[in-house]
Amino acid sequence: MCELLGMSANVPTDICFSFAGLARRGGETGPHADGWGVTFYDGKGCRTFKDPQPACRSKVAELVQNYPIHSCTVIAHIRQANSGCISVENTHPFQRELWGRQWTFAHNGQLRQYRKLRLGRFRPIGDTDSEHAFCHLMSQLAERYRDLPKNRVAMFRRLIPLLERLRTLGVFNILLSDGEYLLVYCSTQLHHLTRRAPFSNATLRDCDWRIDFAEETRADDVVAVVATQPLTVDEPWIKMAPGDWALFRYGERVA
Amino acid sequence: MCELLGMSANVPTDICFSFAGLARRGGETGPHADGWGVTFYDGKGCRTFKDPQPACRSKVAELVQNYPIHSCTVIAHIRQANSGCISVENTHPFQRELWGRQWTFAHNGQLRQYRKLRLGRFRPIGDTDSEHAFCHLMSQLAERYRDLPKNRVAMFRRLIPLLERLRTLGVFNILLSDGEYLLVYCSTQLHHLTRRAPFSNATLRDCDWRIDFAEETRADDVVAVVATQPLTVDEPWIKMAPGDWALFRYGERVA
Repeated sequence: MCELLGMSANVPTDICFSFAGLARRGGETGPHADGWGVTFYDGKGCRTFKDPQPACRSKVAELVQNYPIHSCTVIAHIRQANSGCISVENTHPFQRELWGRQWTFAHNGQLRQYRKLRLGRFRPIGDTDSEHAFCHLMSQLAERYRDLPKNRVAMFRRLIPLLERLRTLGVFNILLSDGEYLLVYCSTQLHHLTRRAPFSNATLRDCDWRIDFAEETRADDVVAVVATQPLTVDEPWIKMAPGDWALFRYGERVA
Repeated sequence: MCELLGMSANVPTDICFSFAGLARRGGETGPHADGWGVTFYDGKGCRTFKDPQPACRSKVAELVQNYPIHSCTVIAHIRQANSGCISVENTHPFQRELWGRQWTFAHNGQLRQYRKLRLGRFRPIGDTDSEHAFCHLMSQLAERYRDLPKNRVAMFRRLIPLLERLRTLGVFNILLSDGEYLLVYCSTQLHHLTRRAPFSNATLRDCDWRIDFAEETRADDVVAVVATQPLTVDEPWIKMAPGDWALFRYGERVA
């Protein structure tokens, strides 16, 4: 399987702390050694760093941990390959442009019979179940809406029945974003947490790093973090149940 | 204006040497300080590194210069903004998926009345003339061919009249690739060079770096390099004339 990490914040926030914990699971404290990737949105644009190398030994992961890139929406993934070989084209997150926005997707799990999922204008570049499912979802959105709908919460809600159907094909924990909204869908395993005032300490589970968020943040910062497994030992992570979903926008849960 | 750098090679080759020269022009030996980007293909997948910071001071550019990423097809760009503000979404290269392949585009120049260029399924995320022109070209390809055509040289040839029309709107030097082929179109200014046996020395124009390619390469390596201005002082760069174009595939010119 793989591990997911997502962030939605009301001010551009760096993810060095959380990413450092995740990266250790990429071959050191965890078995997810088949590549990793992270997307940082910056306005309507975004930057994605990927490496088919294990995160714990990757030069690019070292840069991402040490060079604070500030972003309101982040999606990260470390991979333990099950469907598709170890290669750049099979490394999450996957991206496509729709309606002049960049969409980003990462998946933890495995789907059976995914090749039967109908595609439209979007086609997979690699050969993973994940990218196929993403192209299926994006094609469905493109067929349903000609342009970016005004009511985006309603648009994300209309995806839920599709996600429920995909969940019947196997394990389907996902993160999906258009840069502004972050949709989180739990099939078996996901946790989330919102950091806001009063801030307190946090200690990583996977490496020796403790942070006092009261010193690092401003009083009105709101940062939601989503992860397959809790990344810290001393914060109140909320475990999601199978079928649960949440939609975040700039740190706040909107659905 | 901006500067372009492209590479097409028959074996995965690193571009550290050429990129080091280009990066100096990003705010040090040249005025192109409004961001930079580089795409490295790896099979059907690719990785893109971008930064709206000047290349000469960018932490990410430092990584790209020091960490040899081997690739058969590379497109790089340093920007001096003329259309569109300085931001990640306006930073080249631009990318779109079509027919299950990732396409990459970079542009040097400026177009008038580009907003009149017809778009189809592909829409710009930022607000540059360059990304608009790219979406126009990709939409035209998607309308003309339902799937990746078998004769890809013919497909690239059919783009040439479109490029000629775009050239009438201003300055339009471009690099376009589907990962396997690299199309180079010269509107005002581009040079190319093919390195093959017998290899010799090369000395960068923009910094103190000299390389003996005979020591760095194997006898059957073929590497074509394209750049706005010659990057080295002691190699036989070929200056392209306005309207000239070339199509490379794995180092060899195929049209």
